[in-house]
Amino acid sequence: VSRWEPDARGRLERAALDLYAERGFEQTTVAEIAKRAGLTERTFFRHYADKREVLFDDSGALRDVLFNAVTDAPESATPFDATAAGLVAIAARLQDRRDYAGQRHAIINSNTELRARELTKQAALATGLADALRRRGVPDGTASLTAEACVAVFRVAFERWITEGGQQDLPRIVRESIAELRSVTGHQAT
Amino acid sequence: VSRWEPDARGRLERAALDLYAERGFEQTTVAEIAKRAGLTERTFFRHYADKREVLFDDSGALRDVLFNAVTDAPESATPFDATAAGLVAIAARLQDRRDYAGQRHAIINSNTELRARELTKQAALATGLADALRRRGVPDGTASLTAEACVAVFRVAFERWITEGGQQDLPRIVRESIAELRSVTGHQAT
Repeated sequence: VSRWEPDARGRLERAALDLYAERGFEQTTVAEIAKRAGLTERTFFRHYADKREVLFDDSGALRDVLFNAVTDAPESATPFDATAAGLVAIAARLQDRRDYAGQRHAIINSNTELRARELTKQAALATGLADALRRRGVPDGTASLTAEACVAVFRVAFERWITEGGQQDLPRIVRESIAELRSVTGHQAT
Repeated sequence: VSRWEPDARGRLERAALDLYAERGFEQTTVAEIAKRAGLTERTFFRHYADKREVLFDDSGALRDVLFNAVTDAPESATPFDATAAGLVAIAARLQDRRDYAGQRHAIINSNTELRARELTKQAALATGLADALRRRGVPDGTASLTAEACVAVFRVAFERWITEGGQQDLPRIVRESIAELRSVTGHQAT
């Protein structure tokens, strides 16, 4: 980022989300985003490939938070507990960006293509999570199953958090959802 | 279907899947599908909205199988057991169309847009499944959590079945995956 465009990336992101919320994602152009941010289109394209990518910029950082937590979990942690630790770590990060997360969620749910892309990103997250578990020595099938089920749990917890207006503590909701998955699956086994 | 076009729908589906597998989904036109099936484009469009819909035609029937099994599960069944019964019912149906399921899966995985659409359909399936559970009196959060986790389990089981060449029994793999979810989530709770 050039010195004379302080926080260009953040300004573009805020401008984009505001415009998507006001006018709809389809109706907003890159030119309008740049103008609202007080920057040029050229600057926009130095930071984002297209107007869609503004909404998915954070996914790399979230993935790193998740994978690091799984990798750093104690060796004694079960695959499920290691994954749960990762989900709680992601939740803490999203909690810090509550307004952004809520606004982004509403925009994505208003557009079929964005929603499909979000699901694709989540599927990739589950695949990467399964790989992180395999690197801990978790068998193949168990790794996939744990990863997919836990990403599903996270999605439910996140939806609940958003539906409740983001006022609750997301890490706590995630912990409760994990406990509930144990509960719904466990009754017969115990 | 007109009398002089016996099984037009099935012929179009087989022609489409063969062409998608041979040439790729993008490279295949409706005209080619109709020609391969010995039918007209007009007939194609009487059965399918576009060439993509041929690949998703079955999803309504699968959904009915799933929802009916959940609805018909004994009142004493837990939400998880009712859902598991639904997944096994779907598995049995797919087992009967093993070659189709394998061919379809390969085509969908070869195309980003088709894969995104498949994920969207699976998400809708989870939403509908949660509704079916709510109609059994299952509380809101439990219904969503059970539905999302179980659709995730099914996806893992299905992938395993396909990866193993469709030679194993899918209903058995689904049962094993459900048991494994109980196992990975349950150790601490027991």
